[in-house]
Amino acid sequence: MSTEKVAAESTSEQIHLLIRKAAALRIDSVRATTAAGSGHPTSCASAAEIVSTLFFAVMRFDPKNPQAEQNDVFILSKGHAAPLLYAAWAEAGAFPRERLWTLRKFGSELEGHPTPRLPFVPVATGSLGQGLPAAAGIAYNAKHLEQTGQRIYVLLGDGEAAEGSVWEAAAWSAFHQLDNLCVTVDVNCLGQSQPTMLRHNMDAHAARWSAFGWHVAVVDGHSPSQLLGAYRAALKTRGRPTVVLARTIKGKGLPGIEGDEHWHGRALDSARAEKVIHELTRQMGDSLAEWEPSIRIEAQATVPPPVRTLRPDVYTPPYDPRLDSVSTRQGFGSALAAIGARNKAIVVVDGDVKNSTYTEEFEKLAQLRFLQGYIAEQNMVGIAMGLAARRKVPFVATFACFLTRAFDFIRMAAISGLNIKIVGTHAGVSIGEDGPSQMGLEDLAMMCAEPGFTVLYPSDATSAWRATALIAAHDGPCYLRLGRPAVPVLYGEQEPFAIGRCKVLRKSDQDRALIVAAGITVFEALAAYEQLQAEGLIVRVIDLFSIHPIDGEELVASARDSGGIVVTVEDHYRHGGLGDAVLSALARHEMRVCKLAVSEIPRSGTSRELLAEAGISAGDIRDAVRSALNEFHSHDAQ
Amino acid sequence: MSTEKVAAESTSEQIHLLIRKAAALRIDSVRATTAAGSGHPTSCASAAEIVSTLFFAVMRFDPKNPQAEQNDVFILSKGHAAPLLYAAWAEAGAFPRERLWTLRKFGSELEGHPTPRLPFVPVATGSLGQGLPAAAGIAYNAKHLEQTGQRIYVLLGDGEAAEGSVWEAAAWSAFHQLDNLCVTVDVNCLGQSQPTMLRHNMDAHAARWSAFGWHVAVVDGHSPSQLLGAYRAALKTRGRPTVVLARTIKGKGLPGIEGDEHWHGRALDSARAEKVIHELTRQMGDSLAEWEPSIRIEAQATVPPPVRTLRPDVYTPPYDPRLDSVSTRQGFGSALAAIGARNKAIVVVDGDVKNSTYTEEFEKLAQLRFLQGYIAEQNMVGIAMGLAARRKVPFVATFACFLTRAFDFIRMAAISGLNIKIVGTHAGVSIGEDGPSQMGLEDLAMMCAEPGFTVLYPSDATSAWRATALIAAHDGPCYLRLGRPAVPVLYGEQEPFAIGRCKVLRKSDQDRALIVAAGITVFEALAAYEQLQAEGLIVRVIDLFSIHPIDGEELVASARDSGGIVVTVEDHYRHGGLGDAVLSALARHEMRVCKLAVSEIPRSGTSRELLAEAGISAGDIRDAVRSALNEFHSHDAQ
Repeated sequence: MSTEKVAAESTSEQIHLLIRKAAALRIDSVRATTAAGSGHPTSCASAAEIVSTLFFAVMRFDPKNPQAEQNDVFILSKGHAAPLLYAAWAEAGAFPRERLWTLRKFGSELEGHPTPRLPFVPVATGSLGQGLPAAAGIAYNAKHLEQTGQRIYVLLGDGEAAEGSVWEAAAWSAFHQLDNLCVTVDVNCLGQSQPTMLRHNMDAHAARWSAFGWHVAVVDGHSPSQLLGAYRAALKTRGRPTVVLARTIKGKGLPGIEGDEHWHGRALDSARAEKVIHELTRQMGDSLAEWEPSIRIEAQATVPPPVRTLRPDVYTPPYDPRLDSVSTRQGFGSALAAIGARNKAIVVVDGDVKNSTYTEEFEKLAQLRFLQGYIAEQNMVGIAMGLAARRKVPFVATFACFLTRAFDFIRMAAISGLNIKIVGTHAGVSIGEDGPSQMGLEDLAMMCAEPGFTVLYPSDATSAWRATALIAAHDGPCYLRLGRPAVPVLYGEQEPFAIGRCKVLRKSDQDRALIVAAGITVFEALAAYEQLQAEGLIVRVIDLFSIHPIDGEELVASARDSGGIVVTVEDHYRHGGLGDAVLSALARHEMRVCKLAVSEIPRSGTSRELLAEAGISAGDIRDAVRSALNEFHSHDAQ
Repeated sequence: MSTEKVAAESTSEQIHLLIRKAAALRIDSVRATTAAGSGHPTSCASAAEIVSTLFFAVMRFDPKNPQAEQNDVFILSKGHAAPLLYAAWAEAGAFPRERLWTLRKFGSELEGHPTPRLPFVPVATGSLGQGLPAAAGIAYNAKHLEQTGQRIYVLLGDGEAAEGSVWEAAAWSAFHQLDNLCVTVDVNCLGQSQPTMLRHNMDAHAARWSAFGWHVAVVDGHSPSQLLGAYRAALKTRGRPTVVLARTIKGKGLPGIEGDEHWHGRALDSARAEKVIHELTRQMGDSLAEWEPSIRIEAQATVPPPVRTLRPDVYTPPYDPRLDSVSTRQGFGSALAAIGARNKAIVVVDGDVKNSTYTEEFEKLAQLRFLQGYIAEQNMVGIAMGLAARRKVPFVATFACFLTRAFDFIRMAAISGLNIKIVGTHAGVSIGEDGPSQMGLEDLAMMCAEPGFTVLYPSDATSAWRATALIAAHDGPCYLRLGRPAVPVLYGEQEPFAIGRCKVLRKSDQDRALIVAAGITVFEALAAYEQLQAEGLIVRVIDLFSIHPIDGEELVASARDSGGIVVTVEDHYRHGGLGDAVLSALARHEMRVCKLAVSEIPRSGTSRELLAEAGISAGDIRDAVRSALNEFHSHDAQ
């Protein structure tokens, strides 16, 4: 193990090497950003010694096999310093240095901010404050789930430490005693547009991390020997994560630019770059060609991912359409426990609502794989991103409304293409008395917008159970929308469900309109069907189930069969929900669509009162069908 | 002033009164939640002495005039303890106590969680971690902008302190030395589903707040005399906000329920409630009827709001369509400075990107009304909510993508109906090389979903200038979407713009299709127009400008005039953007719509490369029009 190697006294030769490496990283960062014509060379320069020390004297990894399970992990949370990250991996031998000059060019994997298109990037960064939560997930996995012995290193900026998500993760990591986690904060004192709140007040920084339960070291961030000392102490620290607070100068080593407030996010022009590179080359001295990282390891090939593809039909939902009334959240909770008991890759992250989302059923079966995220939704999703990056299948469940808290993390998870499962319960006004702050009414807008997300919205316990199995087996990010109230069981245990397929619940050859519903509004639609039937009006009814991908083929066919008149009804705000998804699926066809949705801020009341108030009850659907038929047929008559 | 009154020694009579008041508040909280059949009586019970002490011995306010500027302000950040808040205001005389029994009933303003439908609630709470950021905005206003002498009191739960937004606001409040701000944390040690991370470790709580720069007092939260002592010390503390860490028992005073983990969010049944009330009544002793709050003040009528309605045409944008090429963000920044210089109600909140959003132009003119929020988007929006609650007109500006970070705050601002202005720059793939993490591609989905939000998306500097003036003058929440690249100036300084109205840029009586664009895609649409015209195909082109409300009338008329064939094109993800807004406006009419949008996660590249890659360039629009005409006409021929 390398522990001893790092712990050994550093020689002056090693220090000299790290200094020269840092100069080399600066040169490459300047050269690459100047070639690109944009980027953040000064944010790279402040962290050059930190990265050189970590990559060439501390971390154990196989640069030829960056995804190997044995490697230590490095996350660049201050993602705008991407050129420094790329330069370090190139210097370590992961890819030819020439590729650095493709930085930010179309088609290059060396993008403006790191994404997992690069094998050595576990999660995309560039939205500040996200690296630590993801690292906490990876560190929890390494320490508590897989005992891999890996260490996880994260580089933060000091401006970034203003993000609350950093403190969510700091509290949670200390609570779980993640002593395999080591953060370095590059305290260069300058944000994008002005100095940070704490500037170079290292004591204030130290007090905060210490109060959050971390082992703290304060060092000169341009001194490899001080940095090495701090990383050595981190290795010996048990029961607490470590933060190395590195006092640095923005633009360090770039003459005329060092410490200047106005050089954030600006590439040097060619003339200035040449001068700077000339000076850095002089400092670097002799060639670095002879160097080999002393702690390079020969990793085995990447461990194959654990089996996560289940036959979605293995588990039989136990509900009886004749007898049961069960909420969809309960169907989900029971299914998650049943599936999670067999599939050890499944990990659940809660936000202190396990008794509302029914994830407590999973906790009873698999306590270690149940992570209490407490009331900190950003960190919850961040942890899940880290777990997914280690080939776990994380389910994050909380109230749908509180997922808005984590939208930026969800966005970055989509960019990262991670296999995370997000579950939002208590959707819509139908939750009742708790009032608007507890109602998820914009979750479909949010989740369907992100490319690659599968979005399912089951109406009863059986379909909720099946949906849970489907998303567990699906390789990609998923969202499951669930309701609060107990509802009748619609579907028998043998009913097949599939991603991208809807269920046609009522159908005849004389249908005069199509009603498309999902979740709670399916029951309203069925009641409207009865009322209309009593008047001699026969309509078709679809339970959409899969919002994204949507069953465009069936929708178009059913709408055509129903005279081209469609009523959509959803317990979601008017924009960006089910109605818009249906409109989009029908866009290229001449249909008339009436969209029923929640149009105003709701209030407290019973579920029934609120469905009526929002205009999405059975009566509203009936009226909408009637008036659509009148309106559209009178149009035709003109 | 009441300062002396509070600072005076408390008498045993006063303490006795506060204890009895606390019992009365418990009784009302239990009775109201039992009548409602739901709610959080145990979360009320833990804070009964805190609220009784604040309301009846510390705060200066006129209960008959709760919005008066002279009042001290109270924000219940742990919004689920709403019955306690309502009971306190009823006890203070704001409304008849009988109204408490309408709690959570449809039509009652006493909702499950507090909203500004009640005059004594400045901002809606119920999503945890939002009260302190809003309070920080109010406290900043009181101390630095208006010197009102008010004090701002906030009640947090301990579980809530896991939310990062609490620490964003804690850092920012200390940085601004908000010594008129006093937080109490009700450390009852139990979250919804299990104990909190820190349980009753008061030292750990204290260390955190202290490290974030706060004056800290630790007290027994059921002792009015200790609480009073702490609030007295807070009054004398200069240069720092104060936190009172109150050790409490959840369900305190409710026999058989006190300290029990399983009683979160459960109303007592009638029999148990009667027993509990009987016991509390016994403790309370003699009637409270004689009591009058000793520090009640006679407030003047609510101060009228500052003039914020501007004639939107007062300021003339200086751009020249023949000469200039200016980004929309720059048009916004200049307009904001011009308008803000005259309208003193305008306050700007930045997220350390003022040199990218051009709000630095405002800062130069009005430094005190320019609030640097640093890199903490949740707190930024929270501060703005507080400012809006004090009748300021706050503009929050950052990159559109980072607004996803604050979506939960935006959601609660919508529920609160606050007059905040949110501005997102760097929208879309057209930002270029920085890559997907910096591209706002889901902001329209997010902002248009919220009821009541006005959403404008100008295409050039002139319309950006006008849009800025329009939203400054509009009374209600607004979102302004802006791009990064410099673009030609389309509109002359006299061109009129209005919320809810689009601009028809190309129009003839032989139009064969309608192209609807906005922002950067307007220029692509105009280029496509030229290409199609060269082929003899004449189309209509609309710059949508106002996404919400949308100009449905003009869209329907223009689509009809153009053969019912519509191509929408947007630099936004496919779901929830401009295309869906247009589809929704046309839903009830038989049109054929082809939606061009960003369908996959983008990457780094030039603006032009990325527009083409996403399929939203001029060439893509041209091809879409061509193939729509072919497809739809061949349909017709069948």
